[in-house]
Amino acid sequence: MADNPVARALGRASFAGAFGDTAYARAMLAFERALAEAQADAGLIPAASARSIAAACEALHPSGEQLVGEARRSGSLAIPLIKALTEEVRKHDAAAAGHVHYGSTSQDVLDTALVLCLKPCLEVADRVLGAAAGLLAAHARRHARTLMLGRTLMQPASPITAGLKIARWANSVSRCRSRLSAAASRALCVQLGGAVGALDSLGAQGAAVRAGVARRLGLADGPAWHTQRDALLALAAELAILIGAIGKIARDLALLQQAEVQEMQESQGGGGSSAMPHKRNPVACLQALAAAVRAPGLLATLMHAANQEHERALGGWQAELATWPDLAEAAGGALDAIERIAAGLVVNPERMAANLEATRGLVYSERLARHLAARMDRAAASAKVEQWCAQAGKEGRHLKAVAAASLGENLDRVFSPDAVLADLQPAQEEQLTGL
Amino acid sequence: MADNPVARALGRASFAGAFGDTAYARAMLAFERALAEAQADAGLIPAASARSIAAACEALHPSGEQLVGEARRSGSLAIPLIKALTEEVRKHDAAAAGHVHYGSTSQDVLDTALVLCLKPCLEVADRVLGAAAGLLAAHARRHARTLMLGRTLMQPASPITAGLKIARWANSVSRCRSRLSAAASRALCVQLGGAVGALDSLGAQGAAVRAGVARRLGLADGPAWHTQRDALLALAAELAILIGAIGKIARDLALLQQAEVQEMQESQGGGGSSAMPHKRNPVACLQALAAAVRAPGLLATLMHAANQEHERALGGWQAELATWPDLAEAAGGALDAIERIAAGLVVNPERMAANLEATRGLVYSERLARHLAARMDRAAASAKVEQWCAQAGKEGRHLKAVAAASLGENLDRVFSPDAVLADLQPAQEEQLTGL
Amino acid sequence: MADNPVARALGRASFAGAFGDTAYARAMLAFERALAEAQADAGLIPAASARSIAAACEALHPSGEQLVGEARRSGSLAIPLIKALTEEVRKHDAAAAGHVHYGSTSQDVLDTALVLCLKPCLEVADRVLGAAAGLLAAHARRHARTLMLGRTLMQPASPITAGLKIARWANSVSRCRSRLSAAASRALCVQLGGAVGALDSLGAQGAAVRAGVARRLGLADGPAWHTQRDALLALAAELAILIGAIGKIARDLALLQQAEVQEMQESQGGGGSSAMPHKRNPVACLQALAAAVRAPGLLATLMHAANQEHERALGGWQAELATWPDLAEAAGGALDAIERIAAGLVVNPERMAANLEATRGLVYSERLARHLAARMDRAAASAKVEQWCAQAGKEGRHLKAVAAASLGENLDRVFSPDAVLADLQPAQEEQLTGL
Amino acid sequence: MADNPVARALGRASFAGAFGDTAYARAMLAFERALAEAQADAGLIPAASARSIAAACEALHPSGEQLVGEARRSGSLAIPLIKALTEEVRKHDAAAAGHVHYGSTSQDVLDTALVLCLKPCLEVADRVLGAAAGLLAAHARRHARTLMLGRTLMQPASPITAGLKIARWANSVSRCRSRLSAAASRALCVQLGGAVGALDSLGAQGAAVRAGVARRLGLADGPAWHTQRDALLALAAELAILIGAIGKIARDLALLQQAEVQEMQESQGGGGSSAMPHKRNPVACLQALAAAVRAPGLLATLMHAANQEHERALGGWQAELATWPDLAEAAGGALDAIERIAAGLVVNPERMAANLEATRGLVYSERLARHLAARMDRAAASAKVEQWCAQAGKEGRHLKAVAAASLGENLDRVFSPDAVLADLQPAQEEQLTGL
Repeated sequence: MADNPVARALGRASFAGAFGDTAYARAMLAFERALAEAQADAGLIPAASARSIAAACEALHPSGEQLVGEARRSGSLAIPLIKALTEEVRKHDAAAAGHVHYGSTSQDVLDTALVLCLKPCLEVADRVLGAAAGLLAAHARRHARTLMLGRTLMQPASPITAGLKIARWANSVSRCRSRLSAAASRALCVQLGGAVGALDSLGAQGAAVRAGVARRLGLADGPAWHTQRDALLALAAELAILIGAIGKIARDLALLQQAEVQEMQESQGGGGSSAMPHKRNPVACLQALAAAVRAPGLLATLMHAANQEHERALGGWQAELATWPDLAEAAGGALDAIERIAAGLVVNPERMAANLEATRGLVYSERLARHLAARMDRAAASAKVEQWCAQAGKEGRHLKAVAAASLGENLDRVFSPDAVLADLQPAQEEQLTGL
Repeated sequence: MADNPVARALGRASFAGAFGDTAYARAMLAFERALAEAQADAGLIPAASARSIAAACEALHPSGEQLVGEARRSGSLAIPLIKALTEEVRKHDAAAAGHVHYGSTSQDVLDTALVLCLKPCLEVADRVLGAAAGLLAAHARRHARTLMLGRTLMQPASPITAGLKIARWANSVSRCRSRLSAAASRALCVQLGGAVGALDSLGAQGAAVRAGVARRLGLADGPAWHTQRDALLALAAELAILIGAIGKIARDLALLQQAEVQEMQESQGGGGSSAMPHKRNPVACLQALAAAVRAPGLLATLMHAANQEHERALGGWQAELATWPDLAEAAGGALDAIERIAAGLVVNPERMAANLEATRGLVYSERLARHLAARMDRAAASAKVEQWCAQAGKEGRHLKAVAAASLGENLDRVFSPDAVLADLQPAQEEQLTGL
Repeated sequence: MADNPVARALGRASFAGAFGDTAYARAMLAFERALAEAQADAGLIPAASARSIAAACEALHPSGEQLVGEARRSGSLAIPLIKALTEEVRKHDAAAAGHVHYGSTSQDVLDTALVLCLKPCLEVADRVLGAAAGLLAAHARRHARTLMLGRTLMQPASPITAGLKIARWANSVSRCRSRLSAAASRALCVQLGGAVGALDSLGAQGAAVRAGVARRLGLADGPAWHTQRDALLALAAELAILIGAIGKIARDLALLQQAEVQEMQESQGGGGSSAMPHKRNPVACLQALAAAVRAPGLLATLMHAANQEHERALGGWQAELATWPDLAEAAGGALDAIERIAAGLVVNPERMAANLEATRGLVYSERLARHLAARMDRAAASAKVEQWCAQAGKEGRHLKAVAAASLGENLDRVFSPDAVLADLQPAQEEQLTGL
Repeated sequence: MADNPVARALGRASFAGAFGDTAYARAMLAFERALAEAQADAGLIPAASARSIAAACEALHPSGEQLVGEARRSGSLAIPLIKALTEEVRKHDAAAAGHVHYGSTSQDVLDTALVLCLKPCLEVADRVLGAAAGLLAAHARRHARTLMLGRTLMQPASPITAGLKIARWANSVSRCRSRLSAAASRALCVQLGGAVGALDSLGAQGAAVRAGVARRLGLADGPAWHTQRDALLALAAELAILIGAIGKIARDLALLQQAEVQEMQESQGGGGSSAMPHKRNPVACLQALAAAVRAPGLLATLMHAANQEHERALGGWQAELATWPDLAEAAGGALDAIERIAAGLVVNPERMAANLEATRGLVYSERLARHLAARMDRAAASAKVEQWCAQAGKEGRHLKAVAAASLGENLDRVFSPDAVLADLQPAQEEQLTGL
């Protein structure tokens, strides 16, 4: 996408230029340099040519506008870049000009540049997610005995602990991080194949050159993936899943931060408003939710783009290249959000207790029904409890009081927070294992 | 999205900055100016204040980087813009500073800026589509009697004319243009509602002010649509449908331009390759197909974003603002493509005739079956013809010869191009009506 | 999709079989009958044949399993249907068998069957939406003076009325209904074109036959749209937009029905739980939100499918036919939901007042800032109010008290519910106009 | 989705009922039985109760219509199922009725039933993909020395071998199979958590019971994943990627099967037409392409659904359950297609040679340019060859002749098929390694 400030403001500052004119040009030139150097190593071009090409790659700072303008005619950003590079090389070393981009093709440059631009973003992601999972796990441990309402279908369910809730968040972040890292190790692979992806122009040296390019660029080495994008799509999917997992955390948190709930806040402060002086908006949640709204459609685009024709697609591949920066931008927003949330999360045990209490024991209904089911069948127990719940609601009484009166029995153990806490500990510990 | 040269190169040059830092800032400032002027007209603020605000709106050239940086904290690009504007106004007219953005809110500024940025793109679209439909209709009329293979399920079917094929393209472009224009007239509407969209801060003057803003900005006037995005989504859908319709044309054309088919070309020239000197790539088709791959996912994002909470969404609305520029970019690519195709389209009647002929009459099988069905039932006729087709294939003979021999009958009328042409004329004329 | 009970349970009972084996077969047979009758009218086939075909269409009850089994081999459900019909006709009238499906093709049958299956669903939609908009408008009028919190970014904003909130819902339902109806009138069009969509096999009678088929089936008449799906996509888009608009209502309502908010309920009752006897789940909201999650992806699929090759697509068209029933199912769920919500909506003014009051006047901050802005500039006023808000929060006092003490001024007019109500009336009335 | 014959006909016969009323009910009952048995093992319920429940689970054949009807009111298919099961148990063992579904909740039943329904589909997938990759690899080896046109941007590029092309298909199928299997091993996990997913109602026995249920059902054991769906989404993504990979094969094949190309066919036969007796439609490609059109949107829906609220989602989770059957259906279609293609693929070396030859040497242009680049720089060489290509085109001569004449040099080595084949071998072997 051309520059758009609204989208950029939702993203992560350090990702803003990750796929910009400069970054893309530098990545393409890094590819051309590594290619020349690996070819010199393999004896395919003179070492002097590789040096000249390397120097030109450093010296060249092509104008994005000009590249884009010419690319609009040819359909490939690589063509004007290579032309400019060849001219730059020729200025100093006419012989070397013939060795620029040797045996390669546009897609090699552009696909390798894509993964080179992605790589630092994924390194940031790994670091941020590791730290966030750790901080969230610490929050979880801190609130291992803080009871709060569990909520299903957006209605009060049974009690959980804040620790369990946050531990699930932490665990999902940690799982997504580890799958993302595995997917990245497969997908961040050099693309080198020449005209039809067969490396035929490099003859017997093809494999050695490709390995040399990969090593120089810090990428994995492997067969050309120009038309079989499955490994890259698996990476995109893991990014989208991660964005969704963070979005779920933000959804929970935004619900908990509502004025009527106030059980958690994303941080002490909050974003202001242009109209309302009192506003404290959950800006990190906003960022995460915006990213979660964007990611599925972007992933779907990448998936559709995979229906590529023959040895290089007409339109699908190009749409893929154009969509990755948006997915990375959304990921950046989600990372920013989880970083801010993990660092700033505020838990409010008093409000949790108050909201639990305000249900007048209704959220213990399942425990009460289980208690009853020891002496009658489950359906009958459930019906009985349902009736007490209705009565408690109508009379404004606590469910425990209504049930105890009806049963003529002390129900302290059923309605005991300590008993609930004990029951919840295994699940909580399981979620925190390894974090 | 932050700047990305690959995506930009697929788009239309004149759309590149349509939602960029400068365009967005100017649109937001245009809103603030119109608001102040309309409020002065309504007597809500002094005319002098409106003049000062207008002057500051002209004078202010905020740094995109700075706006974005501050917006990352507040979650709204409008907040730093209004702050900067207020400071600019205060420099010259302290009293007027209090009248900046009066009664309005971030979403008013940002939504109105969005439609202001969209407006010129849609005006271009209308012009380009009108011209393209006309040019395509002219091509269609020129080839009203050029027979070619109709193809279904990517296999030869019955003959059509090049004119009919192109007329369908033209008609779909024309229909999409007219629906797009209707959708735009509803969606390009001022957004003015203040904090909760109710215009309550302007009291009885609300409607007059809103109408004044709309008139100044060349937008429709109507109730706040900040949380009910249906009209805007209907516009997005029409853009996506248009992009898809152009994508279908490009799909057909790319298939017809294959070396083995060569029945049409998008233009005389073609894009080159960084590896293969002989390449003539269908770059306009590439552009259109890339846009068609992107549009559905972007539309899906906009649709999801519509699930907005209460009086202003947390994340969904912001994702919508961030996605529109991508959809406009895709539309720009599609417009560029159809403009180039309509202007440059090359039709090759010789190859059409040759490819028809190469089927050895098989594509007349349905006509032959209809001819036979006058004397036997349809299933029997079909079976008979199927058998002749197989025989013709095996013996390398023309279906007409095989059938004529078997029937002992002259089949010139069945296999007559003139008869086919006559049968095709009504459909062709129907498609061209009104174009 | 093959039968799935979970999906079906989210849908509308009356839509469950709308695209099922029986409905599809009946729609295809209705087409074949209408075709034969229209062709008899035009003198293309004998009236006796048309009668025999009509009789066979009534008599035939093909097995879905068998049709599907054969369709798996041929790629078209129409082929085995037509074969079965031809055999049925031949039993009673051998001559008529040759006139079955005359001049038509698989896509004619299947596309026309699609719109025939859609038609009653859209009629239900129109009726349900009309009634729902009316009922919602009545709720809105009833609560025209019920103040409640406006909420932006999921945080308290300024006050609105329940009437305004519901009026916006009603208005969006009404707008969506009217755009849907316009789209349906264009898209519910007969498809008749024969092998390549040109109606060439019917010669000069083509237009008359097509009009006759359309009239018999209660569909619009128009040129073949077999490969130009824009009108159908525009209808799909309007359905998705409608589903989204209802989803937004359900989102608001689910938030308002939270135990801590309790300002509205979708109905007096509610769905139960298999585990928790006290649960009252907002099942209509569930249904609407599930539909809203599904619709964008389904629409995106339809949009992608539009990239069809030549005179009949390979895969794209078929995917479209397979996706429409899911979109209709989602629409059915949304209609069910809005019908239940509009009928059963419960508004709780006491809780609205209590939640407003619980903000201790903070939601009047924008009014207070406007009041101040008469004597100082907007930024200064905003800063002042922000400081009072912080103070009120810290000291647990009402904003009005804090501000009044600081200003030494009676602020009753600023914090007056009646003044707020007066300011909100115009927006509310505007939304209700015409409902 | 309710029953739809068009969609079903695009799917795999054996998948048709995989998520149907019967399969879902059986899967839910299998869960309830395993739960009771595992609880008896853990001493939580009497062994006799577990036996009675197991017997009732076998005996019960609930009506899908009835379950769905009741589920429409409660929002959960599990509620009526458990009610019916409890009644069935009570008929024979009143005491055991109280032990039905003990400590569990709707989502446990439904989520576990979902993965139980998925499991056999994935087992089929693994088997089909293994066989298809093997058969494709055999085709590839058979055509290791069959030269054909490589095509980029749908235009002739440089030569490849049919073996290389098919090897890439085989390799992608094999890679997708292996990632799918890894994702399945993580996602096919029992869901057991009770009301809020914490297994609190089973106290210290929770882990043992869950493990027992998992073992009985042949699923993995692990923490509740009711609200953290990342592992399931990763499986969905791998299915979508697989469908896309098969779609890419079908796209290539459909292009190669065009009458003007005829280089491959999906099989000897082909699907017929209701109108055109000569048609041989690529039905397996149709099926694969339809699946590839559907999968991205379905995946996007699942991704969106992941934005779930708190301890059980309102709408999102239910939409997910409703969408999986569609994704499985699409996968079934893709599997059917690749099975048919791998078994039936026809390669036509004569047409490959003829189409190569028809370019009059143009596809050797890159080799020629490389040859020239030994004596001049790359840009100059490319320009020279471009000029010869134009000349060859204009004069209808072979590029070799034109270049040889201009250079006064024998170019046999440049235009040598054997040299090309030698250059292509390494890439081909690399793709086939391990297949």
